Amino acid sequence: MNERIREILSWYESDNPGTKTNLARILNHGRLGGTGKLVILPVDQGFEHGPGRSFAPNPPGYNPLYHFELAIEAGCNAYAAPLGFIEAGAARYAGDIPLILKLNNHDVLLDEKDPTQAQTASARDALRLGCAAIGFTIYPGSAERFHMYERLRVLAEEAKSVGLAVVVWSYPRGSGLSKAGETAIDVTAYAAHIAAELGAHIIKVKLPSDHVEQPEAQKVYQKYQIPISTLADRVHHVVQSAFDGRRVVIFSGGAAKEDDEAVYNEIRAIRDGGGFGSIIGRNSFQRPRPAALKLLDTIMKIYAGEIQ
Amino acid sequence: MNERIREILSWYESDNPGTKTNLARILNHGRLGGTGKLVILPVDQGFEHGPGRSFAPNPPGYNPLYHFELAIEAGCNAYAAPLGFIEAGAARYAGDIPLILKLNNHDVLLDEKDPTQAQTASARDALRLGCAAIGFTIYPGSAERFHMYERLRVLAEEAKSVGLAVVVWSYPRGSGLSKAGETAIDVTAYAAHIAAELGAHIIKVKLPSDHVEQPEAQKVYQKYQIPISTLADRVHHVVQSAFDGRRVVIFSGGAAKEDDEAVYNEIRAIRDGGGFGSIIGRNSFQRPRPAALKLLDTIMKIYAGEIQ
Amino acid sequence: MNERIREILSWYESDNPGTKTNLARILNHGRLGGTGKLVILPVDQGFEHGPGRSFAPNPPGYNPLYHFELAIEAGCNAYAAPLGFIEAGAARYAGDIPLILKLNNHDVLLDEKDPTQAQTASARDALRLGCAAIGFTIYPGSAERFHMYERLRVLAEEAKSVGLAVVVWSYPRGSGLSKAGETAIDVTAYAAHIAAELGAHIIKVKLPSDHVEQPEAQKVYQKYQIPISTLADRVHHVVQSAFDGRRVVIFSGGAAKEDDEAVYNEIRAIRDGGGFGSIIGRNSFQRPRPAALKLLDTIMKIYAGEIQ
Amino acid sequence: MNERIREILSWYESDNPGTKTNLARILNHGRLGGTGKLVILPVDQGFEHGPGRSFAPNPPGYNPLYHFELAIEAGCNAYAAPLGFIEAGAARYAGDIPLILKLNNHDVLLDEKDPTQAQTASARDALRLGCAAIGFTIYPGSAERFHMYERLRVLAEEAKSVGLAVVVWSYPRGSGLSKAGETAIDVTAYAAHIAAELGAHIIKVKLPSDHVEQPEAQKVYQKYQIPISTLADRVHHVVQSAFDGRRVVIFSGGAAKEDDEAVYNEIRAIRDGGGFGSIIGRNSFQRPRPAALKLLDTIMKIYAGEIQ
Amino acid sequence: MNERIREILSWYESDNPGTKTNLARILNHGRLGGTGKLVILPVDQGFEHGPGRSFAPNPPGYNPLYHFELAIEAGCNAYAAPLGFIEAGAARYAGDIPLILKLNNHDVLLDEKDPTQAQTASARDALRLGCAAIGFTIYPGSAERFHMYERLRVLAEEAKSVGLAVVVWSYPRGSGLSKAGETAIDVTAYAAHIAAELGAHIIKVKLPSDHVEQPEAQKVYQKYQIPISTLADRVHHVVQSAFDGRRVVIFSGGAAKEDDEAVYNEIRAIRDGGGFGSIIGRNSFQRPRPAALKLLDTIMKIYAGEIQ
Repeated sequence: MNERIREILSWYESDNPGTKTNLARILNHGRLGGTGKLVILPVDQGFEHGPGRSFAPNPPGYNPLYHFELAIEAGCNAYAAPLGFIEAGAARYAGDIPLILKLNNHDVLLDEKDPTQAQTASARDALRLGCAAIGFTIYPGSAERFHMYERLRVLAEEAKSVGLAVVVWSYPRGSGLSKAGETAIDVTAYAAHIAAELGAHIIKVKLPSDHVEQPEAQKVYQKYQIPISTLADRVHHVVQSAFDGRRVVIFSGGAAKEDDEAVYNEIRAIRDGGGFGSIIGRNSFQRPRPAALKLLDTIMKIYAGEIQ
Repeated sequence: MNERIREILSWYESDNPGTKTNLARILNHGRLGGTGKLVILPVDQGFEHGPGRSFAPNPPGYNPLYHFELAIEAGCNAYAAPLGFIEAGAARYAGDIPLILKLNNHDVLLDEKDPTQAQTASARDALRLGCAAIGFTIYPGSAERFHMYERLRVLAEEAKSVGLAVVVWSYPRGSGLSKAGETAIDVTAYAAHIAAELGAHIIKVKLPSDHVEQPEAQKVYQKYQIPISTLADRVHHVVQSAFDGRRVVIFSGGAAKEDDEAVYNEIRAIRDGGGFGSIIGRNSFQRPRPAALKLLDTIMKIYAGEIQ
Repeated sequence: MNERIREILSWYESDNPGTKTNLARILNHGRLGGTGKLVILPVDQGFEHGPGRSFAPNPPGYNPLYHFELAIEAGCNAYAAPLGFIEAGAARYAGDIPLILKLNNHDVLLDEKDPTQAQTASARDALRLGCAAIGFTIYPGSAERFHMYERLRVLAEEAKSVGLAVVVWSYPRGSGLSKAGETAIDVTAYAAHIAAELGAHIIKVKLPSDHVEQPEAQKVYQKYQIPISTLADRVHHVVQSAFDGRRVVIFSGGAAKEDDEAVYNEIRAIRDGGGFGSIIGRNSFQRPRPAALKLLDTIMKIYAGEIQ
Repeated sequence: MNERIREILSWYESDNPGTKTNLARILNHGRLGGTGKLVILPVDQGFEHGPGRSFAPNPPGYNPLYHFELAIEAGCNAYAAPLGFIEAGAARYAGDIPLILKLNNHDVLLDEKDPTQAQTASARDALRLGCAAIGFTIYPGSAERFHMYERLRVLAEEAKSVGLAVVVWSYPRGSGLSKAGETAIDVTAYAAHIAAELGAHIIKVKLPSDHVEQPEAQKVYQKYQIPISTLADRVHHVVQSAFDGRRVVIFSGGAAKEDDEAVYNEIRAIRDGGGFGSIIGRNSFQRPRPAALKLLDTIMKIYAGEIQ
Repeated sequence: MNERIREILSWYESDNPGTKTNLARILNHGRLGGTGKLVILPVDQGFEHGPGRSFAPNPPGYNPLYHFELAIEAGCNAYAAPLGFIEAGAARYAGDIPLILKLNNHDVLLDEKDPTQAQTASARDALRLGCAAIGFTIYPGSAERFHMYERLRVLAEEAKSVGLAVVVWSYPRGSGLSKAGETAIDVTAYAAHIAAELGAHIIKVKLPSDHVEQPEAQKVYQKYQIPISTLADRVHHVVQSAFDGRRVVIFSGGAAKEDDEAVYNEIRAIRDGGGFGSIIGRNSFQRPRPAALKLLDTIMKIYAGEIQ
């Protein structure tokens, strides 16, 4: 274990050696292994948006094996997916890449004002499938959020006790927020902090805008002149809000973009703001395989400092 | 075990030998045993629609033993029913046909906007009654769907741990969908994918129409020109949406039809689209026994390729 | 065990010897023991309607011991009551009559559109009190029905595993039904079928009227000309709907009647329609003891075929 | 054990020797020990109404030790209170007086149409604190009543299994009743009966008025001319409704009264109607200690037959 | 252990030696150790108000280690925080200061009429992290309050059984109260009493105003002339309401104040009214470290009687 990884693990001093081992597996795996940076491939869009919307742009993606292979070939740190997708390849690719089992999921077959998610797998499933971590989504801002925090609490306590790591997708949504508020800088920072307080080891948030949603927060942001004008500033503030940089915070890629350079600019801002990496789904698996590999390669080079 | 069955079982590589054995029992049983195709007899309409509506057309059907005998004589791969019906004959016909215990049911004594089902049996019941699989219905599109996914999760985890297979009826319904949307191609494909992600081994859906329900899906279906004009096209898309054909997807027969040829045409479309078979209730047990046997025989011949 | 009892028990072939023994205890006890017919005394009206309304007509009934003695002296097959009443006499009359512990109850201190019941005792209570069976009420047609089916499922699974029999009161009520629909023939048949599918050994329903509640059912009843004009016809249809006569279905006596002959006519219709007997509460315990004994004696003679 | 206590215990023939022992401890303790009459001191008003309203009239009552001492010095049969008050003195006064741990409580910080209570202690707490019984309040007439009956069921089953007695406060309230209905004679009798059916050993109700709340009950009370004109009549009817006098029914003292004679008249009516005693809170602990001791002494003398 | 601490522990005579040991650890730790007075540092504002609003005024506070160090250096009796913050430093500072793990938390991403909190950690977490106590917030006055009392009950029972102490934040809020009522003297006293009855060892309330919220309380406060005009009077009444001073009641500092003297005046009132100390969050960690240390030092001197 190199010094940087040893330093990162030192932030998780309350965890048992099993969990530290699984965090190390993720941090040391793939092209970015040992750098302290991460790129994770997540594929839960089939469940979240439907199979046609997710896989028609690149039909090999209907096959769950495709994503294992993409993540392995690209040299990602980990592959994250719901139960069915993980069950479909966990034995075939055993040991080839750290797996993150998403324990809850949402579909868009009903439009809710205050969305929640369904628990669709268990920590025990993660163990039997050889995963390194559980993944769990919370929706701060939803009237259902406390139920989600509580479910996460139970699952995280169990996961930690059996040596798994805990990855939390913290996505503000629901009747407590305006549409712009879902990616507001104050709300994103708050969402990262809540995930950290709930005991997450790795936190995934969306890239924040410079909108400030809450009037009480706005007063403080102005009074103390918190810098939020550039994306790198905002990444910095989010990372700071997750225990002053002592928790691994990564950022999602969002909807597929046609312009690769736009993606790279976001990566540079994450890097410059002190973010720990990216979780990139649609921008990778919805591209043809060669294009996806090229994109991921460039992203990793930016994170590794091999290119600007 | 022949090669085709071995191939199908290879898709379920995360399952224990007990579950693989029960899947093999179903796939190798009856007239279609070893072909990779299935015809299953389900009789839960007494609970779902009432006994008069279900059995008056062919009164021997009031007797639960009748359905065991019909399924056995017709050479079905399995017989599926609720607790009471299975309890009534499980000992008498022990070993004669693989049984699927339906673990939840719905009645029509109250009209709900967002329907759910009641759990009416357990995985433990399935074990004590010698069943090969549990059956469970979900209603994607209902406000109650997440509760159903979660209940399925718990039961499927238990079932898999004790070597049972999991059969999921995925029937879109509820306030998230229009009436036409319940059988829309995008919704049916989505429903099949959700069942697969939830860990189902065998998935049952209704035959889809060429209606596309969700505007976001419609854009993608048009942009990528997903073929949905023929029934075989649509069967193909649904099968593709269930892990690119790596999950067994079968189709329900729907309400009893007077015209046998209409039934056969649906079977041909399922076969041509790459579907794995049918689950045929009312079209079999509501016909007089000889007519039901003749219908099922012809269906199986079409699936077996013995006739066109 | 005589042939008729052996035949009835053969319908419950999935049950363990413990449950079969308790069914046999009920079927072989009292004046109708061995005939395959049953008369059961239920006394839960104190809870259901209040003590004054229930026992003022015959004040000795305030005392729980009275009902044990009445059931024993009349030669009933079993005595059914809630926890308190059973606890009050179970030791004193241990072994004198099979007991059915009612596990749920309802009171009339609040008028609900969609009623449910409270669980007031457990299968474990039934064991410690020496009972032969648990009793449980469901309200098909209520928005609460699925919760009731699910509670019954859990209790019935436990009861069967410890050798108890399961008696289900299936009483349609709630916002899914009109007042007339609560005793409609299609609804009563449906209610009996649901209880059978839920795994009941003995099913109690109300005597049905010739009203058909559900339009979809009405079409079928007319098309197939299901006979429902006489009370015996309707009893026959209900019994047929409970697995073609392979489940024991008994009928309740309803409110106390002044005219004994009206009671006897109902008994004759139950007998002629193939019903298995009666559960008679208010018509027995609200009469003075000698009158109650005379009434029950005549009823049993009708069932036994000793008189017309 | 004298004959009267032996007789009372014979009514609880289903209970184990542990529970009978604890009932005997209560019945044999204090000035009324062995008479079959009881006076219990309950102090849960701090929780139910607030500390100022409860203890300002006699400030030593803020101290939980005061109530232990008052109950002991007055010679009460038992002292009943919530968790905190019992924890505060259970060790110091161990063995000095039987304790009843109130397992649920309500506060008046929010006005509900259909009140419930919060469970605030457990049967296990009662064991570790050396209590003789658990206490539990139900609100028949509230839309929450079934949840309360069910919670009581679980706690009572556990309590009985570990040898504790069960004391039920049955206080009709909620949207099913008018204000007058809360103490109506029919409702009070019904509430006592429900508590008895739920398995209570000792039942506490309020003194009933001569109002009859329910129209269906009114018909019966008139037809059968149930005597309810005097308070003793009504006490008699309530006791009769609790298994014809085979359950211990005691009556609450209600709000503090300035006129001692008014209190004594109620005691005489309870005695004359066959009630088993009183549970007197505010009328004792809100008086200065000497006045409280004098009042309780007189009450006990009336019950003991030493004075009229 | 000195006499004062021995006296305080004598109030908790029902607790096991494990819990007494943890109470003693808190009472004997830091600058006020052994005086019977306490100053606790709580840092849950990141979760409760958001990270920017909480830590921007003094940015080192983003780092969870900062608060451990501040509490240790200031000589506080204990440090209280949610799971993530405690996990971040519990190993590094093991044994340096007693820890209180906050088991539930609330955020302000949605405005509720009747707020509740989410359980975010467990008693088992407290054990594995070496904590001396669990912390739990209740909202008397909220429609959710009974759920909170019940959750506390379960957690407190577990905590006590494993030797942990129980600290309850009792903060009146919700639809049962006016805004002024949240800090009304009658309501604050009631909130302290409820926490005591629920079994809390240490109770934290806000400093009360002289408003009396409840009309029924107002009558009593006037009739018995309960002194509430000075802050010290009100502190006295609150302490009296928590078992006449036999439970440790501490008071929160509220929002950050610019004027140190205003803080000291509150401390003097707490001291003069017989309060046991303070729990001071924003007023300490939102000041620069030297200013915070000076403020805490002065506060402790006031409590210790070293200065006026």
